[in-house]
Amino acid sequence: MMTAQRTAVGAPAVEVMPVGGLGEFGMNMMLVACGDTALLVDAGVMFPEPELFGVDLVIPDVASLDMYKGRIAALILTHGHEDHIGAVPYVLPHVTGPVYGSPFTLAMVTPKLDEHGVDHEGRLRPVAPRQRVEIGPFTIEFLRVTHSIPDAMALAIHTPQGVILHTGDFKIDHTPLDDQRFDLQRLAELGAQGVLALFGDSTNADSPGVTGSDRDVIPGFEEIFCSAPGKIIVASFSTSIYRMQVLVDLADQFERKVAFVGRGMVRNSETAARLGVLRIPAGLQIADSDIRDYPAQDVLCLCTGSQGEPMAALPRIAIDDHRHVKIDDDDVVVFSAREIPGNEKAIGRVMNHLARRGAEIITDGMKHVHVSGHASAEELKLVLSMVQPRFFVPIHGEYRQLAQHARLARAVCPETRVQMLEDGDILRFESGDATVVGRIQTGRVLVDGTRMGEVDDEVLRDRRHLAGDGLVVAVVAISSQTGELEGHPEVIARGVASDPRQDAVLRDAPGLLEAALAGAPREERTDPGLVKERIRLEVQRMFRKRANRRPLVLPVVVEM
Amino acid sequence: MMTAQRTAVGAPAVEVMPVGGLGEFGMNMMLVACGDTALLVDAGVMFPEPELFGVDLVIPDVASLDMYKGRIAALILTHGHEDHIGAVPYVLPHVTGPVYGSPFTLAMVTPKLDEHGVDHEGRLRPVAPRQRVEIGPFTIEFLRVTHSIPDAMALAIHTPQGVILHTGDFKIDHTPLDDQRFDLQRLAELGAQGVLALFGDSTNADSPGVTGSDRDVIPGFEEIFCSAPGKIIVASFSTSIYRMQVLVDLADQFERKVAFVGRGMVRNSETAARLGVLRIPAGLQIADSDIRDYPAQDVLCLCTGSQGEPMAALPRIAIDDHRHVKIDDDDVVVFSAREIPGNEKAIGRVMNHLARRGAEIITDGMKHVHVSGHASAEELKLVLSMVQPRFFVPIHGEYRQLAQHARLARAVCPETRVQMLEDGDILRFESGDATVVGRIQTGRVLVDGTRMGEVDDEVLRDRRHLAGDGLVVAVVAISSQTGELEGHPEVIARGVASDPRQDAVLRDAPGLLEAALAGAPREERTDPGLVKERIRLEVQRMFRKRANRRPLVLPVVVEM
Repeated sequence: MMTAQRTAVGAPAVEVMPVGGLGEFGMNMMLVACGDTALLVDAGVMFPEPELFGVDLVIPDVASLDMYKGRIAALILTHGHEDHIGAVPYVLPHVTGPVYGSPFTLAMVTPKLDEHGVDHEGRLRPVAPRQRVEIGPFTIEFLRVTHSIPDAMALAIHTPQGVILHTGDFKIDHTPLDDQRFDLQRLAELGAQGVLALFGDSTNADSPGVTGSDRDVIPGFEEIFCSAPGKIIVASFSTSIYRMQVLVDLADQFERKVAFVGRGMVRNSETAARLGVLRIPAGLQIADSDIRDYPAQDVLCLCTGSQGEPMAALPRIAIDDHRHVKIDDDDVVVFSAREIPGNEKAIGRVMNHLARRGAEIITDGMKHVHVSGHASAEELKLVLSMVQPRFFVPIHGEYRQLAQHARLARAVCPETRVQMLEDGDILRFESGDATVVGRIQTGRVLVDGTRMGEVDDEVLRDRRHLAGDGLVVAVVAISSQTGELEGHPEVIARGVASDPRQDAVLRDAPGLLEAALAGAPREERTDPGLVKERIRLEVQRMFRKRANRRPLVLPVVVEM
Repeated sequence: MMTAQRTAVGAPAVEVMPVGGLGEFGMNMMLVACGDTALLVDAGVMFPEPELFGVDLVIPDVASLDMYKGRIAALILTHGHEDHIGAVPYVLPHVTGPVYGSPFTLAMVTPKLDEHGVDHEGRLRPVAPRQRVEIGPFTIEFLRVTHSIPDAMALAIHTPQGVILHTGDFKIDHTPLDDQRFDLQRLAELGAQGVLALFGDSTNADSPGVTGSDRDVIPGFEEIFCSAPGKIIVASFSTSIYRMQVLVDLADQFERKVAFVGRGMVRNSETAARLGVLRIPAGLQIADSDIRDYPAQDVLCLCTGSQGEPMAALPRIAIDDHRHVKIDDDDVVVFSAREIPGNEKAIGRVMNHLARRGAEIITDGMKHVHVSGHASAEELKLVLSMVQPRFFVPIHGEYRQLAQHARLARAVCPETRVQMLEDGDILRFESGDATVVGRIQTGRVLVDGTRMGEVDDEVLRDRRHLAGDGLVVAVVAISSQTGELEGHPEVIARGVASDPRQDAVLRDAPGLLEAALAGAPREERTDPGLVKERIRLEVQRMFRKRANRRPLVLPVVVEM
């Protein structure tokens, strides 16, 4: 039954605008405005598709925030995943007030701000579940939810028009590893009191059933720990703190040392351990440089590179190009992450390299070694049932997931009005009704260069800007058998303004590229994905260093 | 226990050479030679990776067969899937003798040969299960296996060195739709008598358990037929004859008419119906042009395009660009096929377009609407157990699947010697032993143009040749919101020999491309995958028609 709601006739209108994350995965950001006050919920990145050559991050176009200049009174973060916090350094300059989030979420943000030189002195405000924060006409209430990262929260935004409930990312894990449960009781209470609008995470709307607890991977990993004769190497997302905890606990139980390998793994495990959300028994952890001092059967490595990213730890290990970690015949490599669509081929290539070195490969299709952090259909139905909002807006997903979540809502709450939104739509709540009243300009901004560790203000630019710096196509023909170059590389430029320095780079580029490729390991040269990445990096470096230009580099590898 | 084997000391050596299919999916082809006689087993294609812009098919390099010129006495086909027969028109000229295969397999080959103008008068020899054919020192015995296509066979090749068993592609379906069972009895008998070497399908070696019967999708589809209020549209592979049979039977039961939509669907359903391997009740089938004459709830469409191929039926339907099939709000679209790695993004885009038109989308993750045709680990173990070969060679798969199959074999048959081979390795059987004695040249040949229906000898050329016709990069900037062109297209050529006709094409290309894109539907223009395909086709057509050139066309779409 739909409960009576406090309809606020005559109260000021409230507008909600998704800036990113509707119609795409990632780049989650939503603006909520009432009178002179606006709030931002999350500021995430999207990882670029392989087609976006030379681009490292995609963030929402902050130009869309210009019409709210000086009025954005707070940035509220639901949890510490990149697709919710990765764009904070780019967005914060557009926010006049503080950043609210759980202590762990803020701890994940701080190093990003420091790296980008964004001053955040006194602006990061930790909040606890059930805490309330007043911002102009809004009262934000934080609700604990369960997700694949600790300290995740949903938001009940009390507005003059009623309560807007934003789930953030969630699943319903009844046995969370840190015993911090989903606040179902407060959710039910809010539902009973009447919720104006529910904005719900749709990521897994097309998965039937329930997602399951992060503990569900324990039996699968126990089997692996029981039988693995050599090193156990697990690749997962560096933000999967619960996965880390499961593995640290098993390593302790099975008497293996734990090494975190790869920048993100090292950094995030440190942050999590410092805040107490990852508990590592004393003496268990070793540095990756110490791995070779221990017998293989006493070592567990937790690696970055589960998506086949060419410069991450596991892909380098797979082609024997890592300083400290070598694959031996008895090693077991576990892919403990979902394959993000678009990455399958790159991941497959990494697996083939590992298999060639004799490693046994275990994926989620073989043993239950991964569990999603997002609610499946039955959990979404449960939340809809408990909340019974007047309006429902599916968020976080491509159009088909949003549409599927809408179908679930129509089945569960026939009295709820389902409102499909896309990025940029302005949904106005007024006098108990909700109407799309217009659109704000939205777009994507491509960020380049973070992989090189050369992050500065310069690297931020949009596609127009990229097009302005021109396009460089580098064509290399390589023997797929030997990895030898066939003929000379060709480097073609378009839209690159002619100046003496650039002309010199263009003239020298083929020779430099030839030399760089000749020096790369053979396995890299016979892997088109790795060769492309190498060409991209080398050509970018040449133009950056010698001509201070950042063209879009398009590597073309012709296999002979 | 390993049974005694007839070791043929002093008998002539037998050499086996995988030409394709080991270390990759598709392009399956294997050469078996003894004395002056050689046989080819299968001649398949591989579908190109999205990175191979402008290429429609990848086939094994027939140059590798040159050293057996005039000695290849037969081509033996295990079944009618493209990855086993697609290269027959290119390979047959290198074969002096007949082509053996089941009647249905040969019926799938015939139109290919006719289309390519390859004379096959009297060369196609249908064989039945348990039939034996003598070819020089070899006796080929055909064994019925179950797979996702009717009339699939394994081969027991009796050689002077012993029996070589080639599984072809298989799973063990105990309840095949056509009641044609896997010949487990003969397989066991051969095993008991002693098998020299087993060459086994590894495609699903990393899937645990058993694959299941093609009947297993019936309950899932029954649910869909029970509840679908509008059209049911199913996308699957056009060679999945058993899937067609399941759906035709359900359509009959639920009183829906069946329309086959898309060239491959129409052609293969006709072939299968003509040979009696697909049974369509009289009056059930309608042409796609008649669909609109029936109420939506009375129609089932079977479509091509399950992989998101831009020119196939479903992707065109999804953007409302199909002459006869329109999506309505109540329609259900079922993706009844696996997603071939690399195609996920394109498939996702098609799903989003369909969801926008209001269709409900059902994938294998939501209901059990697809079952693989390849044996999983338990079935592979069963075959290994029954055959207990002296030597085992995993075939059909990327390196990681071959390696996993090898692991299974070591566990099941500790006395069997597992021999890992890659494309081009020559494995010699002699005096009861097996040794890799060298390599033949292998490679890939890219075939372009079949999508346009313009197949002739000219379209066959290798990458070197492609490089010889040059590279054309077409850069188009498009507003991702409106689909309008921003600025003018740029067309850059490299390695294209300068001549007046080509120069004219290059000069006119930007304008022509601009006009062609302006005339395309908006949904196509806002979908980068479709825009790329359109650019590729348009630019290829310009160069082909006006300059008789076939450069490699690389479309670059910059979204604004």
